[in-house]
Amino acid sequence: MTELRQNMATKEWVIIANERAKRPDQYIADHSHATTEMQAEFDPDCPFCPGNEELDLGVEQLPPTGDWKTRVVYNKYPALSREGDPARTFDGVHRRISGVGHHEIMVEHPLHNKTLALMTPDEIKLVLETFYSRGWSIRRDSRIEQIVYFKNHGERAGASLKHPHSQIIGLPVVPTNIRHRIEEARRYFDDNGKCVFCTMMADELDKKERLVAVNDHFVAFILYAAPSPFHIWILPRQHSVSFLYSQPDEITALSEMLWLVLRKLYVGLHDPAYNLIIRSAPVKEISNDYLHWYVTIIPRLSRTAGFEMGSGMFINPALPEESAAFLSNIEV
Amino acid sequence: MTELRQNMATKEWVIIANERAKRPDQYIADHSHATTEMQAEFDPDCPFCPGNEELDLGVEQLPPTGDWKTRVVYNKYPALSREGDPARTFDGVHRRISGVGHHEIMVEHPLHNKTLALMTPDEIKLVLETFYSRGWSIRRDSRIEQIVYFKNHGERAGASLKHPHSQIIGLPVVPTNIRHRIEEARRYFDDNGKCVFCTMMADELDKKERLVAVNDHFVAFILYAAPSPFHIWILPRQHSVSFLYSQPDEITALSEMLWLVLRKLYVGLHDPAYNLIIRSAPVKEISNDYLHWYVTIIPRLSRTAGFEMGSGMFINPALPEESAAFLSNIEV
Repeated sequence: MTELRQNMATKEWVIIANERAKRPDQYIADHSHATTEMQAEFDPDCPFCPGNEELDLGVEQLPPTGDWKTRVVYNKYPALSREGDPARTFDGVHRRISGVGHHEIMVEHPLHNKTLALMTPDEIKLVLETFYSRGWSIRRDSRIEQIVYFKNHGERAGASLKHPHSQIIGLPVVPTNIRHRIEEARRYFDDNGKCVFCTMMADELDKKERLVAVNDHFVAFILYAAPSPFHIWILPRQHSVSFLYSQPDEITALSEMLWLVLRKLYVGLHDPAYNLIIRSAPVKEISNDYLHWYVTIIPRLSRTAGFEMGSGMFINPALPEESAAFLSNIEV
Repeated sequence: MTELRQNMATKEWVIIANERAKRPDQYIADHSHATTEMQAEFDPDCPFCPGNEELDLGVEQLPPTGDWKTRVVYNKYPALSREGDPARTFDGVHRRISGVGHHEIMVEHPLHNKTLALMTPDEIKLVLETFYSRGWSIRRDSRIEQIVYFKNHGERAGASLKHPHSQIIGLPVVPTNIRHRIEEARRYFDDNGKCVFCTMMADELDKKERLVAVNDHFVAFILYAAPSPFHIWILPRQHSVSFLYSQPDEITALSEMLWLVLRKLYVGLHDPAYNLIIRSAPVKEISNDYLHWYVTIIPRLSRTAGFEMGSGMFINPALPEESAAFLSNIEV
């Protein structure tokens, strides 16, 4: 029989439809598709390839001088503008705010086909250090309430350009969905005197049924109530509200963890499309006992349809324990 | 400049990125793609085509005897099982419920290529009457808390079978997302003494900037804070919590309205993929002043990516007022 499982942090229910379950290896992306490493290293028409830098608006690069290894540019068609006042005004019965905020793109590597899973841990570390540097820079803007760090890999995940890149958006509001999550986390703390994310992590380490990888600073597991196949959370062992408070050894450990988990997905599922998100607390919540930042990786192996849109619930045809066992066993 | 707009009913913010806006006609699906009416009327391998009825588990048909015009069958791979007790149990620190509920499929028409937009209003009325009949039947099951009625049209909207069909899922829980919406609607009523949906509808009728179509019983408009291009709500003028309390003249008026709106999308945007959802209150909320049922139609013209997943917010590159003007002017 199928089963409804609740995410204890968000309180969202998921249907784990194991009766219609596919075996983990049935999620392997079409074997005939060209993986990222089979693509060209350089594309003269790509705005992010070295030599085309004058096509964009550069913000920052690492290292700061000489040939860049990562490079941050302003989005040519930004969702939000850097100038202006985010005053809330009425538009008849409705509320609106002018679209003030930050929208930056990070070119993650000079090579056109060097996706995260093909980088070394040191190269991934530079990507994280760039997120860190830009995050701190955006955080200094007092108009900003929330920073969203994310990456879309592959067309199914919404990537429109192939060159490896990620995005950073600084918002003048705390999104409703994030507010709901904060309220749930606070309620859990009120009821139990513990961080719900720390509790989940301790349980995963104890049960070992859904672990994908662990190191000294991070724990990667498939969610008990995974909304979609192979939906992964990577939690820092140290309770902290924001990625921006990470210590250098944590950044190093996270780059090693991302390398390992993304390699496992790349090798095990043949370079699937995925979204990667760093979920941090609103920037003005500088410390508390109930919010815990984390990284989530969502392979795009199923489609959202009317049921998901109408209920906010997801149907996951993959058993999380089977997906975790499959990934654990993948040699990278 | 772009603008953040808030949906006054759900409190969700949306970025209306009109600087990257496409003109409405740029959303027309690839002109070269074969529209539904160009497909065959009959497919011998289709489980829903007449003659193949013994392949499935029939539940109900309309008319009840003789050749069917609509037909309801059990899903061969149901997300939920009809038998069992939906008791909540602990799985370590987690909550779960056995997957008890209903999952039915409605074959909307005997012809393989007769999608809703190509039916007559009378044929659409039979589809609505079938939803109504099955809804009442599922509602009698005291284990059920929420019914979700939905349709996926086209591959991008998650339809795996081409034969026109929709689905009805009866859930043993009220999804978290729906609970949040209920809380917001109740809060609006507490603050203002009015239903937020009635307020929105009155405003749309007054402003006329986002109307798509109106008749005696229904108002169709593009949301002020539309999360995606051409995102439409169709509200009944009569305040009511559930589709299941509709009067016969309302069902007739809704079938005429759906015919008109779906024709406009089909003709104007060249048969786009879409999801259609009937949003009703939890079945045990039989009457109140703050919840208002409605139909939503979501053309699938953009992709959700990391930003949407990480924030719950959407970036809509289409200006709702322009989309509404475009659809209003489409002759069907």
